[in-house]
Amino acid sequence: MRIAQIAPLYEAVPPRFYGGTERVVAHLTDALLDLGHDVSLFASADARTRATLVPVRDQAVRLDPHPHKSELAAHLSMMHEVRRRAYDFDVIHFHVDLIHFPFFEDIARHTVTTLHGRLDLKDLPDAYRRWDQYPLVSVSDHQRRALPLANWISTIHHGLPDDLYRVAAKPNDGYLAFLGRISPEKRPDRAIAIAKRAGLKLKIAAKIDAVDNTYFAETIAPLLLDDSVEFVGEINDDEKTQFLGNATALLFPIDWPEPFGLVMIEAIACGTPVVAWRCGAVSEIIDEGVTGFVVSSEEEAAVAVVRARALDRGVIRGMFERRFTASVMAMRYVEVYRYLGSVWERGAPIAAVA
Amino acid sequence: MRIAQIAPLYEAVPPRFYGGTERVVAHLTDALLDLGHDVSLFASADARTRATLVPVRDQAVRLDPHPHKSELAAHLSMMHEVRRRAYDFDVIHFHVDLIHFPFFEDIARHTVTTLHGRLDLKDLPDAYRRWDQYPLVSVSDHQRRALPLANWISTIHHGLPDDLYRVAAKPNDGYLAFLGRISPEKRPDRAIAIAKRAGLKLKIAAKIDAVDNTYFAETIAPLLLDDSVEFVGEINDDEKTQFLGNATALLFPIDWPEPFGLVMIEAIACGTPVVAWRCGAVSEIIDEGVTGFVVSSEEEAAVAVVRARALDRGVIRGMFERRFTASVMAMRYVEVYRYLGSVWERGAPIAAVA
Repeated sequence: MRIAQIAPLYEAVPPRFYGGTERVVAHLTDALLDLGHDVSLFASADARTRATLVPVRDQAVRLDPHPHKSELAAHLSMMHEVRRRAYDFDVIHFHVDLIHFPFFEDIARHTVTTLHGRLDLKDLPDAYRRWDQYPLVSVSDHQRRALPLANWISTIHHGLPDDLYRVAAKPNDGYLAFLGRISPEKRPDRAIAIAKRAGLKLKIAAKIDAVDNTYFAETIAPLLLDDSVEFVGEINDDEKTQFLGNATALLFPIDWPEPFGLVMIEAIACGTPVVAWRCGAVSEIIDEGVTGFVVSSEEEAAVAVVRARALDRGVIRGMFERRFTASVMAMRYVEVYRYLGSVWERGAPIAAVA
Repeated sequence: MRIAQIAPLYEAVPPRFYGGTERVVAHLTDALLDLGHDVSLFASADARTRATLVPVRDQAVRLDPHPHKSELAAHLSMMHEVRRRAYDFDVIHFHVDLIHFPFFEDIARHTVTTLHGRLDLKDLPDAYRRWDQYPLVSVSDHQRRALPLANWISTIHHGLPDDLYRVAAKPNDGYLAFLGRISPEKRPDRAIAIAKRAGLKLKIAAKIDAVDNTYFAETIAPLLLDDSVEFVGEINDDEKTQFLGNATALLFPIDWPEPFGLVMIEAIACGTPVVAWRCGAVSEIIDEGVTGFVVSSEEEAAVAVVRARALDRGVIRGMFERRFTASVMAMRYVEVYRYLGSVWERGAPIAAVA
């Protein structure tokens, strides 16, 4: 199939550092190529890909040092370009929330839209009611709850290349890991409390967005004065393997409706157990007592950390290979593309398509 | 004429507090009604207007206490609604940057777009090249410099209702005024330095956006400890008349390419002189030695403050009435609407329009 993947322009594909959506797009693109498809990737020019790259901005927006940028204009221009080339593809797969909705109304059935973010936003029901012709994929069943009546056609969990992470040679270095973003909803403060209660060192690898500077300065920085907490900043993929693979467990004590939680499967790919809060998609990702534990309190979390030491890292890795590889993800998307194709054939002819 | 005004959804129309674009839309709408036109206003439901209101959100986004909102979805839904009703109007006048561009490509010649913001953003040239069919109005000649090749059809300065502000009975209370937003580009620090140099008290009325919290805390808050500086927070329209009208002068020591600078004509409407930095549109707005002074250094500014005391507040107000009333602005827009109408008649027939 001729498939177009449309990535957001916030981070490089894959991102140099933090960035979930662009990372998933990179993995999906590579896995579709491995399955023999003809894939074009619309993304910023700093993408590293074996697909046909259609560069629509010289670099990703977030780390672009230019002081004055317009995310909106950049994404609108990208959509203009996708529209111009729309008939070159059998299916156009969007990962950009809903900004493409005005552009493809007449060929919506040739598109798939994966929603990567939380959907419990006040303004979304009206927009998804107005544009109900776009086939939507959720990244967890939980994610759908905020928009139960939208045009869902499948839930497809994220996946990672099977050679990106591996089980460490001598894991379990006696520390707990927190990886992601310093923000109130990710609850680094709770991770610190759990580590203290479990009597283990905590290493925090995280980016700090400008909007979270005050939260970091006022709430988190004072907690870092403790010797048992180490803040290592934002880390890249290579560092991540070490960071996650050597940890006793990943703590994921979130306080928001997490639509997926990519870092959980990164840990699972390393064979590292996950101790995660009962919140959002967490229960769909963790196999209780196999890849980790889902908890609801700091007490439970501290107990789970002890129990996590007994989990078999080979078995955890095996669960990754069964459920969360990029090729599993890509095969499920190909099913969706094919399903839509058969709907097109059975449905009314789409005049605009050659 | 049947005219649609399309306001942004960030602030109420007019705004309760800060907010330039929505304020101008409110004034333009009222002035067009006074000229006998049939005006519909697309805006959030908290608009106060004599026009036909088409409410597209229950309240404006910024002060909406809902914790999870999507500005983008809200504006896309609004555009969907405008498009649905497009053929009810002779002209559709947009004040929402470029988010409407994907929606009205086939009837762009029935639209006018006033650009209210700075245009020297990296992503704009490509977008304005892709959508070059939309007739654009700039709010100052200076604003155009960043996009000289865009489809400009007129520059129209902002205007205010002539009864909104008045010359104070006993003006010149011996303080200088700073009004707007606490942010590095607005340079409240420079205003404080000028006031000190001039030996006058400074009153600062300003909102603080979340993104500027750190700047406020680190750079401005320490300067407020001085007795000669008073921070009065965000003020409404009624308070503004007092605040500006009683000031010796308004300080506008900006450090960015200000596309217009509404607060300058608010002061001029009160008969209050303006001392402003040579930057952006400032020289187009200030009549040097009549309504104020344009300066390039703190020394010049301090001298200008002294000279400003000698300016005639009645003459300043007269200049407002000649150049910056809402009815002057509305008449100029009607000229543009009529010009476009005559272009349509001469041009190729627009099939989509009944």
